[in-house]
Amino acid sequence: MKLWTATRQGEIQNIHSRIHVRGVLRYGVNVVRRTLSELSHLVGGRVVGNESVEIGRVASIEEAGPGDLTFLAHSRYRLYLASCKASAIIVGSNVAVSSYLDKNFLQVDQPYLAFAKILRVYTRPQDYDGQVSPRASVDSTVILGERVTVFPHVYVGRGVRVGQRTVLFPGVFLGDGVEVGEDCIFYPQVTVREKCRVGNRVVLDAGVVIGSDGFGYAGEGKERIKIPQVGIVEIEDDVEIGANTTIDRATLGRTVIGRGVKIDNLVQIAHNVAVGEYSVIIAQAGIAGSTQIGREVILAGQAGVLNHLKIGDGARIGPQSGVPHSVAPGALLSSGIAAAPHREWLKVMTVLPRLPRLWSTVRYLERKVAALSRKAESGKR
Amino acid sequence: MKLWTATRQGEIQNIHSRIHVRGVLRYGVNVVRRTLSELSHLVGGRVVGNESVEIGRVASIEEAGPGDLTFLAHSRYRLYLASCKASAIIVGSNVAVSSYLDKNFLQVDQPYLAFAKILRVYTRPQDYDGQVSPRASVDSTVILGERVTVFPHVYVGRGVRVGQRTVLFPGVFLGDGVEVGEDCIFYPQVTVREKCRVGNRVVLDAGVVIGSDGFGYAGEGKERIKIPQVGIVEIEDDVEIGANTTIDRATLGRTVIGRGVKIDNLVQIAHNVAVGEYSVIIAQAGIAGSTQIGREVILAGQAGVLNHLKIGDGARIGPQSGVPHSVAPGALLSSGIAAAPHREWLKVMTVLPRLPRLWSTVRYLERKVAALSRKAESGKR
Amino acid sequence: MKLWTATRQGEIQNIHSRIHVRGVLRYGVNVVRRTLSELSHLVGGRVVGNESVEIGRVASIEEAGPGDLTFLAHSRYRLYLASCKASAIIVGSNVAVSSYLDKNFLQVDQPYLAFAKILRVYTRPQDYDGQVSPRASVDSTVILGERVTVFPHVYVGRGVRVGQRTVLFPGVFLGDGVEVGEDCIFYPQVTVREKCRVGNRVVLDAGVVIGSDGFGYAGEGKERIKIPQVGIVEIEDDVEIGANTTIDRATLGRTVIGRGVKIDNLVQIAHNVAVGEYSVIIAQAGIAGSTQIGREVILAGQAGVLNHLKIGDGARIGPQSGVPHSVAPGALLSSGIAAAPHREWLKVMTVLPRLPRLWSTVRYLERKVAALSRKAESGKR
Repeated sequence: MKLWTATRQGEIQNIHSRIHVRGVLRYGVNVVRRTLSELSHLVGGRVVGNESVEIGRVASIEEAGPGDLTFLAHSRYRLYLASCKASAIIVGSNVAVSSYLDKNFLQVDQPYLAFAKILRVYTRPQDYDGQVSPRASVDSTVILGERVTVFPHVYVGRGVRVGQRTVLFPGVFLGDGVEVGEDCIFYPQVTVREKCRVGNRVVLDAGVVIGSDGFGYAGEGKERIKIPQVGIVEIEDDVEIGANTTIDRATLGRTVIGRGVKIDNLVQIAHNVAVGEYSVIIAQAGIAGSTQIGREVILAGQAGVLNHLKIGDGARIGPQSGVPHSVAPGALLSSGIAAAPHREWLKVMTVLPRLPRLWSTVRYLERKVAALSRKAESGKR
Repeated sequence: MKLWTATRQGEIQNIHSRIHVRGVLRYGVNVVRRTLSELSHLVGGRVVGNESVEIGRVASIEEAGPGDLTFLAHSRYRLYLASCKASAIIVGSNVAVSSYLDKNFLQVDQPYLAFAKILRVYTRPQDYDGQVSPRASVDSTVILGERVTVFPHVYVGRGVRVGQRTVLFPGVFLGDGVEVGEDCIFYPQVTVREKCRVGNRVVLDAGVVIGSDGFGYAGEGKERIKIPQVGIVEIEDDVEIGANTTIDRATLGRTVIGRGVKIDNLVQIAHNVAVGEYSVIIAQAGIAGSTQIGREVILAGQAGVLNHLKIGDGARIGPQSGVPHSVAPGALLSSGIAAAPHREWLKVMTVLPRLPRLWSTVRYLERKVAALSRKAESGKR
Repeated sequence: MKLWTATRQGEIQNIHSRIHVRGVLRYGVNVVRRTLSELSHLVGGRVVGNESVEIGRVASIEEAGPGDLTFLAHSRYRLYLASCKASAIIVGSNVAVSSYLDKNFLQVDQPYLAFAKILRVYTRPQDYDGQVSPRASVDSTVILGERVTVFPHVYVGRGVRVGQRTVLFPGVFLGDGVEVGEDCIFYPQVTVREKCRVGNRVVLDAGVVIGSDGFGYAGEGKERIKIPQVGIVEIEDDVEIGANTTIDRATLGRTVIGRGVKIDNLVQIAHNVAVGEYSVIIAQAGIAGSTQIGREVILAGQAGVLNHLKIGDGARIGPQSGVPHSVAPGALLSSGIAAAPHREWLKVMTVLPRLPRLWSTVRYLERKVAALSRKAESGKR
C-alpha cells in the first residue's frame, strides 16, 4: 500500500489494467492466449469452426471484436449473431449454428457455466500488497496472518484474528474479538461488530453490516425495554454477501450463514436466523427472527419470510412473495402479482375486498340453480 | 482508545469477555451470581423447584448448562424441556411444569419481559474509555461533554455539540452544526448530515444515514430541478435505529422521529415525515414524504405508506402491506398475501385480472336466477 | 478544511448558518432580499396583494412568519391559510384568494416548480475550501482538478481522475482507475469501486455503493461458481442517487445510469441494467439484471422489475408493483394492493387461492342458467 507516499511514484505501471480501444471495454491480460480447442477441453465442449483460432479476451456480444470470445447469454441476443465480430461464440448444444459458416462456435451443454469458467481464465485476481497501512488503526493485541492487506482508515479492535491473505479495504471495521478466516475480501465500509466470526474465502461487499443488534424489545409503549443482543453472527466458508446487506447478531447464541451461501444486495437477515448451506438470497429479500432456512433454498428478490418458521431444503420462494408459515422441502411458492394496466388494476382492486361476498353469492347461486334444475326436471316429467 | 499504540500491550485482560466452553457461547460475568429467588423478586415471578439455586449466566435453551438460566422463547421449543440441562427455566404462568420434577422453573405472566429484565442483570454494558482518538478529525469549534468517546477515523464538523458519555465508533460522520445528546451510541459508518439534532440515549446502528437529501424535484424530464432540502432531521430521546436505515432531511422544517421510537434495519423514511412516540417500524418498511405516523403505531416488515397521509395512533399495518390512504387510530390493516404453491398461484394470477368480469357475471346470474325463480314460483301457482 | 488544526480557531463565523428564532427554523441569508414583484417575474406569476413586500426567507406554512414566503404544498394545508403569518404565499392559479384580503399571494400555474425556483434563490450552496486534507489517502498517481475538496479519511486509489470543484466527504472510497467529473458531491461513506465512471454534477448521498459485484453465479449447490464481474458502472451527467442505494457493476460491459436520472434511497440496481435519461426511481425499488429501463420512466417505491426485460420510454410503474414482462412505452402499470381491515383481508385471503375454482363454477352456472332460461322460455311457449 503506502499509496499516499512519494516513494510510490515511478513504480512500474500495472500492465494488466483495463485497455481502452475506441471506447470499447475489454478485459483480461494480453499475455493470456488460448486456442479455442484448449478452451473447449477446459469446459468439455465441441468446436464448430476453426479450432486453432486464438482467444485473448472475453467480451459481451455487442462489444466483442476479433480476438475475443463472446457468449449468447439469452435467446433475445440471437439477433446479434449475424453481425458479431468475435473470433468465437459460446452457445448451447441445442442452438443451430450450421448456417453461420464464417463463424466459430464453442457448443456446450451449460453455456453459462462454460462462460464463467472461461472468463475466470482471463480474469487475473487483483493483486494486493499484503501490508498493513500505517494509517489503519490496528490494536496491538490483534493477530494477523501472513500477507494480510490492511488499507488506510481500517479499524481492527482488541483480540481480533485475521487469517492469511485476507484483504480489508478502507473504512472496514472489525470490532473487539472478531475472528476472520483466510483469503477473505471485505470491501469498503464493511462493519463486523464485536465477537462475530467469519470463515475462509468470504467476500463482503461494500457497506455490509454483520452483527448489528437484533430487533428485540419486550413490553409495550413507554414500558418497552431492549433485550440485550449478546449473541453473535457466524459466517461459514465461501459465503458472499452483497452491498449494504445487514445481518443481525443473535439475542443469545448465533445467527448462522451456512457454507457457500450467496446473498445479494440490501437483504435483511434478523437475529437467530440460520441459513443452510448453498442457499441463495436475492436482493431486498428479508428474513425475520429465528427462522431456519434449509439447504439450497432460493429466496427471490423482495420476498419476505416471517419469524420462527422452517423453510425446507431446496424450497424456492418467488419474487415479492410473503411466507407466513413453514414450507416443506422442495416446495415452490409464490405470491407475487404481475403488474397490470393501472385502470384495469383499479377495477380489480375494487372487487378484491368483496371476494368473500362473491364467494358466498356463487355458493348461493349454485344451490339455487341446482334447485331450479331439479324443479325443471320434475316439471318435465 | 489508543488501541494502535504499543503501550496497550500487557494491559489487564478484560475478564468480562466471552467465555468459550466446548464450543458453547455463554454470556455475562462470572462475578454476577443471583439465586433464583432473587431473580424471581426482580421480575415478580413464582419459583417452582429449588429457590436457592445460583444463576451465573443466561443461555439459549439448546445451549444452556448447569449454572445457566434459560427461557422457553416459543412453544415450538417445548420439546427441549425434557433434555434441558439449565439450572432454571423461565416459563409462562400457563405452562404446566409439575411433570418435570427434577427441574427448576421461574413462572411469570410475561416470560419475554422477565427474560429481558434478567438478561440485563447479566449483561455488563461495554466499557468505553471516554477519550478522543488523535486519529479522529474533530473541528476546534466542537463542544464535547465529559467522557465522550471518539474512535479513530471519526469526523466531527464545525460547531457540533455532543453530550456526555456519548460514543462515536470509527467512521462516524457528524456534519457541521449537528447536535447530539448524552449517552448515545453511534456504531461504525453512521452519517448524521449538517444541522440535524439527536436526543439522549439514542442508538444508531452501523451505516445509518440521518439527514440525507429529501427526494424532491419540480418539473418534468429535462426541466426537472432539484428542490433544495434545507430542513433537518430531529430524533428525540431513547430512539434506536437499525443498520443501514435512511432518514431524509425535510425540505423545510423537520423530519421528526418521536421519543422511544424503535426502527429496524434498511427502513426508508422520507422528508418531512413525523413518526409519533413509541412507534415501531420493522425492517425494509418505507414511509413516503410528509406522512404523519401517530403514537405507538406498528408498521410491519416491507410495508409501504404513501405520502401526505395520516396514520392514527395505535394503528398496526401488516407485513408487505401497502397503505394508499389515511388510517384511523387503532386500525389493524393488511394486504400481504401468503405465498401459495407456484402452479396454483399461476392459475390464480390468470383469474385475478378478470375479477371485474367475474363480478359482473355473478351479478347478472343473480338477476337471472331471481327471475327464473319467480317464474318457477308463478308456474307452480 | 484542516478543521482539526488549531489555526482554525478565531476564524470568521459563517454568517450564513441556520438562525434560531424562538425554536423556529428559517433558512437562507439575511442579505438576500427580494420584493414579491421581483420573485413574481422570476417564476412568471401574478401578485395578488402588496407587490413591494420584501421577502428574506422561505419557510413551511406552519412555521412562516413576517418576512417569509411560504407555499401551499397540498390542499390539506389550506386550513393553515387563515392563520398564516407569512408575508406572502405561493398558490396555484386555480386557488380562490380574493377572500383573504389581508394576505399577499403569488399565483402561478405550477406552484411546486415556482417554490423550487424561489427556494434556490434563498439557498446559498455550501462553501467548500477546495483543499485536500492531509488526513485523506490520495495515491500519487491521482489527477485532481482545480479546487477539488477532499475531506479527511477519504481514500483515492491509483490512477483516479477527479474533475474540478468536486467534493469528497469523509469516508468516501474511490477505487483504482475511477473517473469522476466536475462539480460532483459525494457524501460520507460513498464507495465507488474500481474503474467505474461518474459524469459531471453527480450527487451521491451517504452510503451509496457504485460498482459492487453483480450477483452472477453459474452451476448449482456445491458446484456453483462465481462469474467474475469485470464490467463497470457508468453514471452520466446530472444524476442524483439517494442514501445507501446500490448499483452493481456489469459482468462484461457496463451498467449505465443515464443523464439526469434521479434515484431515491435504498434502491437496488443489478448488473448490466441500463436506466434511460431523466428516469426516476423511488425508494426501495429494485431492478434485476440486464433489464433496460427507457427514458423518463417512473418506477415507484418498493416496485420490482425482473431481469432481461425492456421497459418502454415514459412507462410508469406503481408502488410495490411487480413487473415480470417487458412493458410498452407510455404504459401505466400497477399491482400494489391497498391495505384493508385485517379481519376482512383474512377472509379475502381464504378465497384468493380458490379463485380458479370460483371462475369455473361461475362458467358452469352461466351455462346452466342459460339452459334453464331456454327451458323456461320454451315452457312458456
